[in-house]
Amino acid sequence: MSSSAHSSALIEQISNYMNTQIPFQQLLGLRITEFASERSEVRFHWKNELVGNTPQRILHGGVTATALDTVGGTVILASVIERLADSTPTEEIIQRMSRVGTIDLRVDYLRPGRGDEFICTATIIRSGNKVAVARMEMHNQDGIMIAFGTGTYMVG
Amino acid sequence: MSSSAHSSALIEQISNYMNTQIPFQQLLGLRITEFASERSEVRFHWKNELVGNTPQRILHGGVTATALDTVGGTVILASVIERLADSTPTEEIIQRMSRVGTIDLRVDYLRPGRGDEFICTATIIRSGNKVAVARMEMHNQDGIMIAFGTGTYMVG
Amino acid sequence: MSSSAHSSALIEQISNYMNTQIPFQQLLGLRITEFASERSEVRFHWKNELVGNTPQRILHGGVTATALDTVGGTVILASVIERLADSTPTEEIIQRMSRVGTIDLRVDYLRPGRGDEFICTATIIRSGNKVAVARMEMHNQDGIMIAFGTGTYMVG
Amino acid sequence: MSSSAHSSALIEQISNYMNTQIPFQQLLGLRITEFASERSEVRFHWKNELVGNTPQRILHGGVTATALDTVGGTVILASVIERLADSTPTEEIIQRMSRVGTIDLRVDYLRPGRGDEFICTATIIRSGNKVAVARMEMHNQDGIMIAFGTGTYMVG
Repeated sequence: MSSSAHSSALIEQISNYMNTQIPFQQLLGLRITEFASERSEVRFHWKNELVGNTPQRILHGGVTATALDTVGGTVILASVIERLADSTPTEEIIQRMSRVGTIDLRVDYLRPGRGDEFICTATIIRSGNKVAVARMEMHNQDGIMIAFGTGTYMVG
Repeated sequence: MSSSAHSSALIEQISNYMNTQIPFQQLLGLRITEFASERSEVRFHWKNELVGNTPQRILHGGVTATALDTVGGTVILASVIERLADSTPTEEIIQRMSRVGTIDLRVDYLRPGRGDEFICTATIIRSGNKVAVARMEMHNQDGIMIAFGTGTYMVG
Repeated sequence: MSSSAHSSALIEQISNYMNTQIPFQQLLGLRITEFASERSEVRFHWKNELVGNTPQRILHGGVTATALDTVGGTVILASVIERLADSTPTEEIIQRMSRVGTIDLRVDYLRPGRGDEFICTATIIRSGNKVAVARMEMHNQDGIMIAFGTGTYMVG
Repeated sequence: MSSSAHSSALIEQISNYMNTQIPFQQLLGLRITEFASERSEVRFHWKNELVGNTPQRILHGGVTATALDTVGGTVILASVIERLADSTPTEEIIQRMSRVGTIDLRVDYLRPGRGDEFICTATIIRSGNKVAVARMEMHNQDGIMIAFGTGTYMVG
């Protein structure tokens, strides 16, 4: 199997794992819809259980923080996999992935969390052997930017 | 009814409301256990649905962010109520409360989210007519500090 | 004088003021080179006095934070002026401007602060009557992104 | 020389270095007055050159950010030195120290920067082999808290 095929297969496998085996993502209905180091994407649909402000029917800020943290972690994981896939046994990649974790997260709440579907995207702005930084955005289906985030992640 | 009795009754009423009528807090099992401007507290128990890292059985970072945002919002709401209760009709207080919202939030993930019960506390470090800032901490039942947060909130 | 001419003249006047009458900006050599709500820019040249890491000759992180806070404040001020210029007496605009202030600032240090000239840019991601949020970047003359920032500002 | 004496001598030496050989700290007049992993302190006096808001005579926000970043970096450096001093040659400690750097910084501006002397303190809230997090405060000589900060630092 060629190296990029190895990377793709692994990305596919991890993506399936994350979409089915992480309880809190399941609870919220978050799905990874793009999983690459250049850009990752997480989507979810409105559900009444996600409301924080009942009279105004707005998403809880914690839902937004969860979605941004998830998409930021996804883009970082993708970069770890892509970097290692050519040269590293799968077990060691899994090992490295288990050490990826959020160090700190900033969320800017720009507009009320209203919509039918929410699309969260992330890109990497600092990439390193030990620490990486991602920049995240959340829009609704009409392209309204609802929140912006910055996350610092441990990678090694 | 004396003014402080008015404030206490209102605090009690709002606290009940928040503990029963906010879907996302219900979903996670968050309960407000102290509701005062000097210090507020939110608690929740471990549940398997809250896991983010399955092999290591660690809370999802979004759970931590939700709990810190909730306790920060609680201490800010308490200060709005306490300030207005003596001189303002209840309807106007409710009106003011509906305008309280998170502007931005920083979470520092200090240690893995492991434990049976999680205790989140908040104090106010900037108090103003338009904007207020709270400082939050999350410990587990053994007193281990798991996360630290800072939140800026719109209040008026 | 037409309304947009009024706005331009005021922008010019404020820009001159900020480039000559703010001691700490003078000390560092910061110059506002674009002053508009759509995008503002601040530039400065390398000076030995700005070093924080002497053996490696890298800018002090405080210089970067100062430049990002300055360009973020500039884009916010420009939006206040542009919004008010048509309908508001200059004295009141000046009054409003004096109330603009940084509530909180996050700086992400992405790469070592090395270069001959540093170009800082800002755009607004949340615009409001009371609070606004700006997103800032600092590059050197070769287009290397050195830092990224997010600032929340009081505007009213 | 005993190990703790080694650590103390090194701390003394580094402290002198930082107080005399870092140009931007000299420019602002920042002095390290406590240098220990348990708690570090940096002080500076009011100078007209540090003003950001001329009519109101308030410190530039960049001065506050610089002072908080400096005291945060100091407490982190002290912890690196204390941990290594017993077992590591001085050259290697110096080597390790040169790799300490700020990853990200949050500053909360709580009250206007007015006073004769400013006292900045820092403690460590996350201590690790690769990444550490410090919490900082700035008060004036009357005990008024002017700003609060959180910094994430690379340590290894």
